[in-house]
Amino acid sequence: MYSHKLLKPDGRHLTLYSRYPIAEGIVAPSPSNEPIAANPHLRWHPLRGEWVAYASHRQGRTFLPPPEYNPLAPTLHPEFPTELPQGQYDVAVFDNRFPTMSLAAHSTPALIVETLPANGVCEVVVFTQDPHAYLSSLELDRLELILQVWADRTRILGEHPHIQYVLPFENKGVEMGVTLSHPHGQIYAYPFVPPVPARMLEMQQAYYHQNQRGLLQDLIQQEIEDNQRILYQDEYALAFVPACARYPYEVWIAPIEPVGTFMELTLEQRRGLARALKTVTLKYDGLWNRPFPYLMAWFQAPTDGNPHPEAHLHAQFYPPYRSSDRLKYLAGTELAAGMFANDALPEEKAKELQAVPVKLETPVGL
Amino acid sequence: MYSHKLLKPDGRHLTLYSRYPIAEGIVAPSPSNEPIAANPHLRWHPLRGEWVAYASHRQGRTFLPPPEYNPLAPTLHPEFPTELPQGQYDVAVFDNRFPTMSLAAHSTPALIVETLPANGVCEVVVFTQDPHAYLSSLELDRLELILQVWADRTRILGEHPHIQYVLPFENKGVEMGVTLSHPHGQIYAYPFVPPVPARMLEMQQAYYHQNQRGLLQDLIQQEIEDNQRILYQDEYALAFVPACARYPYEVWIAPIEPVGTFMELTLEQRRGLARALKTVTLKYDGLWNRPFPYLMAWFQAPTDGNPHPEAHLHAQFYPPYRSSDRLKYLAGTELAAGMFANDALPEEKAKELQAVPVKLETPVGL
Repeated sequence: MYSHKLLKPDGRHLTLYSRYPIAEGIVAPSPSNEPIAANPHLRWHPLRGEWVAYASHRQGRTFLPPPEYNPLAPTLHPEFPTELPQGQYDVAVFDNRFPTMSLAAHSTPALIVETLPANGVCEVVVFTQDPHAYLSSLELDRLELILQVWADRTRILGEHPHIQYVLPFENKGVEMGVTLSHPHGQIYAYPFVPPVPARMLEMQQAYYHQNQRGLLQDLIQQEIEDNQRILYQDEYALAFVPACARYPYEVWIAPIEPVGTFMELTLEQRRGLARALKTVTLKYDGLWNRPFPYLMAWFQAPTDGNPHPEAHLHAQFYPPYRSSDRLKYLAGTELAAGMFANDALPEEKAKELQAVPVKLETPVGL
Repeated sequence: MYSHKLLKPDGRHLTLYSRYPIAEGIVAPSPSNEPIAANPHLRWHPLRGEWVAYASHRQGRTFLPPPEYNPLAPTLHPEFPTELPQGQYDVAVFDNRFPTMSLAAHSTPALIVETLPANGVCEVVVFTQDPHAYLSSLELDRLELILQVWADRTRILGEHPHIQYVLPFENKGVEMGVTLSHPHGQIYAYPFVPPVPARMLEMQQAYYHQNQRGLLQDLIQQEIEDNQRILYQDEYALAFVPACARYPYEVWIAPIEPVGTFMELTLEQRRGLARALKTVTLKYDGLWNRPFPYLMAWFQAPTDGNPHPEAHLHAQFYPPYRSSDRLKYLAGTELAAGMFANDALPEEKAKELQAVPVKLETPVGL
């Protein structure tokens, strides 16, 4: 993997990644040259025991722009600069122009609850220069590259003393509130381990302490033996609808053997995960022959300097649909109580997805 | 308060509540006479350490029916029975026909994760016979009655040995997935203390242990002294945008002094909460001169047989809008990490709501 680091005129970082060498002399554009003066802050929610982020500039962010201007495509007309330059590269990562967290955050209002500058990082990851692509339509070796990019970002962001947790995710589809259809994900790097990964690590720690094995490692073995909900399997990676799915079409992807972070993946594991990722997204988009919306989040070990033998890198997909024409709304029991109610059995939804034919570009040779 | 208990032909319970005596001889209808054979189950989510409910019949539930049939209105034509009878009563409570949990649940599938019959209760609370009303348009003494009804349901449901937590809530608006516009709420009675109330009680317990005072009690005092985000205040009750709001238009309502459950409210506290509830819903519906969607949830002490001096009955409103034409989507950082990102300051949103004029039907006399 080749990478090339650039600075935008407004002070933000841009890194280009490619499977091939990147030409020198590329200049990073920005939709605006005004320096970014983001100063988001965190407030402590004493009743829930968690941080909430406030970034009051965000209301004005890009919202369903006219189709002729795509800020995530390479700049075509210098008078309408986008976020990205022209040139030969595969993937681009840059600082979000309207960040929920920023390492430059420096002050907080005086309040009745505890506050902190929101010293995190919010990055945008553009998966391809093609505005009409989806993860499902990308070549396998580009998906492998994206896994390498996530590893590089985890390493770089995790090295910062503030950053305790790096979360790559993709919101896909207008149903998830996505305003730019150009294929892209995001990376949030938090100055604490956020509540959901913290809870999962707590459960994994307790299990590891008791069994000297990983909780997800054993769950994966049980899913393989049960063989009811599997969507993809090879020697290194697995994709499945978990037996405890909270969303009707929830899917998890993981290396079969525990791996803490993207950085520790072997070439074979990356290859397996890329095939699993391609299979799942092809099945999703093939299910109703239309782009299938979801939130995809990759959970890994914190970058807090402590060993995390309990952690097991994996992706969870949360799709908002419960059938082709019905959304699953999160309401009373989900948002207020925290108990998800699923009106479909994971076994039935797994069958639906298993039935969607998928052909990977390279024959599996089985 | 008067109440009258009936049995529906399909075996479900119906209770009518009124400020006036209820006539004898009312017969409870049901849209279908087929006995309810719900058998929902719970699956343990080992990674999140929480229960997930599965009720596979729910996909077929009533969904945007034609306007001439309203299952929550009193039955007009005996050949099209609804959920409610004709007669003089104010509020009606009945078992949900498509429950996520049921005391009759008895068996579970064999699975790789732990399972339990979902032995809870899901009730529907119809606030009025008027299909065009909102909480904001109901008289204050009917709102007081609704608070009494929630107390009665908490007592009755909480007495059942399975039931550990009673949560009254209202999903309002199509934006929250509501399929029936007739004004109604729901009550979920859980066979465990669900994750969100459990977490809040944990924080409240730790605070109470350290300070011998309530966490919310002290937060309320600080909100009163800070006097920036208050929407309603009298001697007994307070409504405010909390300093740690996770949703742009989030509002909390609480008695000023700690009260564990609806059952322990005094007449004066109920009166104050009714006025607070009417004020908040009037401000919401008045903000953009249209019905304002939200999730309203009332948190109280568990019915688990233990004392809960740390608990403090209160409502939290989660509205899905961040401005009149923009929804706040829950996506990557909220759903995957559990850190909410709010692009509006609670102080600004409180000002917007404070500016909406509200006139309660009875002069406050201040």
